[in-house]
This record gives sequence, C-alpha cells and structure tokens, in this order.
Amino acid sequence: MIPEDHPRYESLITREKIVEGVENGITSIHGLIAQGRGEAFDYLIGEKTAESALKAEKVAAAILLLAKNPVISVNGNAAALVPEELIRLSDAIDAPLEVNLFHRTEERVKKIVEHMRSLGAKRMCTKGDALIPGLEHDRAKVDSTGIFIADVVLVPLEDGDRCKALVDMGKTVIVIDLNPLSRSARSAHVTIVDNIIRAIPHISEFAEELKNLEYDELQGLIEEFDNKKNLALALDEITARLHSLQEQAGI
Amino acid sequence: MIPEDHPRYESLITREKIVEGVENGITSIHGLIAQGRGEAFDYLIGEKTAESALKAEKVAAAILLLAKNPVISVNGNAAALVPEELIRLSDAIDAPLEVNLFHRTEERVKKIVEHMRSLGAKRMCTKGDALIPGLEHDRAKVDSTGIFIADVVLVPLEDGDRCKALVDMGKTVIVIDLNPLSRSARSAHVTIVDNIIRAIPHISEFAEELKNLEYDELQGLIEEFDNKKNLALALDEITARLHSLQEQAGI
Repeated sequence: MIPEDHPRYESLITREKIVEGVENGITSIHGLIAQGRGEAFDYLIGEKTAESALKAEKVAAAILLLAKNPVISVNGNAAALVPEELIRLSDAIDAPLEVNLFHRTEERVKKIVEHMRSLGAKRMCTKGDALIPGLEHDRAKVDSTGIFIADVVLVPLEDGDRCKALVDMGKTVIVIDLNPLSRSARSAHVTIVDNIIRAIPHISEFAEELKNLEYDELQGLIEEFDNKKNLALALDEITARLHSLQEQAGI
Repeated sequence: MIPEDHPRYESLITREKIVEGVENGITSIHGLIAQGRGEAFDYLIGEKTAESALKAEKVAAAILLLAKNPVISVNGNAAALVPEELIRLSDAIDAPLEVNLFHRTEERVKKIVEHMRSLGAKRMCTKGDALIPGLEHDRAKVDSTGIFIADVVLVPLEDGDRCKALVDMGKTVIVIDLNPLSRSARSAHVTIVDNIIRAIPHISEFAEELKNLEYDELQGLIEEFDNKKNLALALDEITARLHSLQEQAGI
C-alpha cells in the first residue's frame, strides 16, 4: 500500500496500474517502457497540468464537440490507466471508443474491449477491417466505421508514424503526448502536453462546460489557437521547471 | 531485426535487451519502467556522452584505481544491458561485482550470478549476510565481504534512499544516473549523467589509461573535481539540447 500523503503518490499509483495492466494482458510489455518515458517527462513538467496544456485541452473539447464523427482511440496504457475517464469522455462528446494498438494482437483487443465494457463503455469500435494508407499491415488496421471515417481523432499516446498517417488522411488529430518535441506532438493539429490521467478528465470537464456554446463561439476558440506557439510555451514551461528544480537542489 | 542504420538503433537494441532480461528472469518488471525513464533523459542529453559525463567518468576511474576495496554493484538492468562491459571493468580496476537488487529475490540474484559467470565474471559477491543501516530489511541486504566493507562503491542505477544510506556509511559513492536532479545524483560523491551502455566502457578505458599514473597525479585529478559544479554543467547541457531540438523542430 502506498500512503496517500506520499509526495509521489499519483505517480506510484499510476505505475502500479500499468503493471497490473500487463499482468491482466491489457498492456503490452513495451507499454511499461512507454510509461517510464512518460514518468520522466511528467517529472519535467512538474506532474501537474501546465498553462499550455490547459489551453490545448479546452480547444480539444471544442473541436470534439463540433466534430461530425469524432473517435477516441484507446491503447493498452490508456485502458489500464484511465478506463472510466475515457468512458465519461465518450459520453460527454458522444464519440465511440476504438481500440487501436501499436503491438496489436486480437487477443489483447478482445481483453481491452471486455475490460472497457465491464466498466460501462457503450459505444465501441472493435473491428480491424480497414487500413490506414502508408503503414505496414498490422499497424494500419482500424475500424471501417470508426477511425477510418472519423473527421476528428483523439489519440492519447500515439506512435509518430501513425499520427502522421492520420493527418495525411485529412483528419483533425488531437494527441496527448508528454514530449512536446516528439514526432506525434509536432504533426498533430492539437498537442496536449500532459499526463493522460489529468488530460482526459480535463477534456471531459471542458466538453461539459462548453457544450451549450453556439457554433461561432466554439469556432472562435478553435481559430484563436496556434499549436506551434503552444508547443513553444510548453517547452518554456519545461525549461522554467528545470531551473526551479536546479535552484531547489542548490546546484 | 532492427536495421543498423536506423537513427535510433542503439536505443532500440537497448530496449530489446531489457525486454529479454525480463523474459529471462534477470530484470524485474519495474526495470522496464526505469528503462523508459532512462530513455527519456537520454533523449534529453542527446543519446551521447556529454562533456560533464566524460569528466565524471575519468574521476570515477581515478577513485576506483585508488580504492582499497572497491565494489561494482550490479542490478537487473545493468546485468541485462552491459554484462560484458561490467566484467571488463571489474578486471580493469580489480573489483568484485556484487548483485544488489531493489526488488530482491534470491532466485533473481542466482540467475544474475549465473548469467554473469557464464560470460566470464570471476570475482562476484553473492551473499546477502549483512545489512546497510537505516533501510528496511530486504532493501538493506549486502555481502559482508563486498559492499558492506567497501570504501568505494560504483552503483549504476541506484535508488535514492540506498545511495544516501551508502554515503551515510562513510563510503565514497559513484552513481550513474541520467537524471542530474534525482536524489541519487545529488547525494553521490561522483555523479555520472550518462547511459550505462556508454558510461561503463568509458570508465574501463579511463582506468586502463590512468593505471600507470602515480598516486599524487590521480589524487590531483580527484581533488580538482567538484560534483555540484559538474551537475550544474550537466543541467546546462540539457537546457542547451532542448533549445537546439526546439530550433530544429522550428517551434
């Protein structure tokens, strides 16, 4: 048991959830390495939502509300860490959840679908009957009624090649990625530099808050946003955090 | 197979070795998360040895050469990633290798010892018959003829509490840690901010290069070194790298 007042409580609980995900066959062993990378970048942003991330989360909610066929992509780490939060978001923006794995096996897809359904997921895309152009076969599989025809895709934790391939298909892509310099972060239309355990609930809250706005108001929010400028802000936040850690450490 | 000309070849090979280590029972599942954290920090230092790291590696070699009872600590990640390099270093500085696990099980200790011996390790400390004061029982176990009586300990990848406990025992502690701000990094006498796959071979090379120097010359090298200043240099290198990545990305 990790005591709730432990200074790194959230981070340690998150780590346990991922290990549990691997044990349950939901998360791949590579997901653990990805989790470690995420931990390091989250440490650099201070394990809290920065101003740049909050901006991106708000715009993401606006885009998802205006979308005709939004889809939320779910991988093995997201399913282990924030299953209920993804279901809440799916309800808030009326979008299906699609299991979309980098190390895809039909067994793992099935386990994740069962896991999400057992927690109350209603709308799920589960087929792998269409292919994203430009990717090798297994990595390209998506649902013909889900990501394949979506106009907006929210991809928490996406591989750089696939993120770019979705952009090349003409979709609006929103990624959650703790590294503001990753290929995914740079190719997406909206990049949320935040931990998914904070980002997904924030997007739901913004969706609930913004849902009664008029089309023009939402459109205004979206047009004001500049992803490149926001990424630069995220980088400035990381540099400032490094300086403050250095100062605290007396180095 | 990962093609040798892949831009991130080293990093991907390293990742495969760690996954293999888990499959062989040498590396713990938590070692994968640690590997991911390391990958993120290594990315920030540019996946190459920085000037600050090279300085620390040279001083580490000098300290190890002058030590009366130096010991090289080996954990599950080090055993999976650089077993042969650790054996070479053990020979170069005439120091035993001691298996020292954070998530200790006797089974895993045995597997690592067998693995290292099969690759040619001659001097190994394998008992867990003494305790480092101030740590809970399982985390405290060390060999009474190894780390317990060592004057200098090289710990690639050490937990913050244990690093501090070794310092409190009066030992000279050299750590290899990619995060210059970690508790280990801050409590050690010499902190090498580098990937162990590069750091261990560098220390061996320096040991071979310096071994014919007189006592006073080695002592001079050691006295010139200031770990705090060197950590500040490592942080400056990371900040500079972030700026250059940002520039390259046009953000």
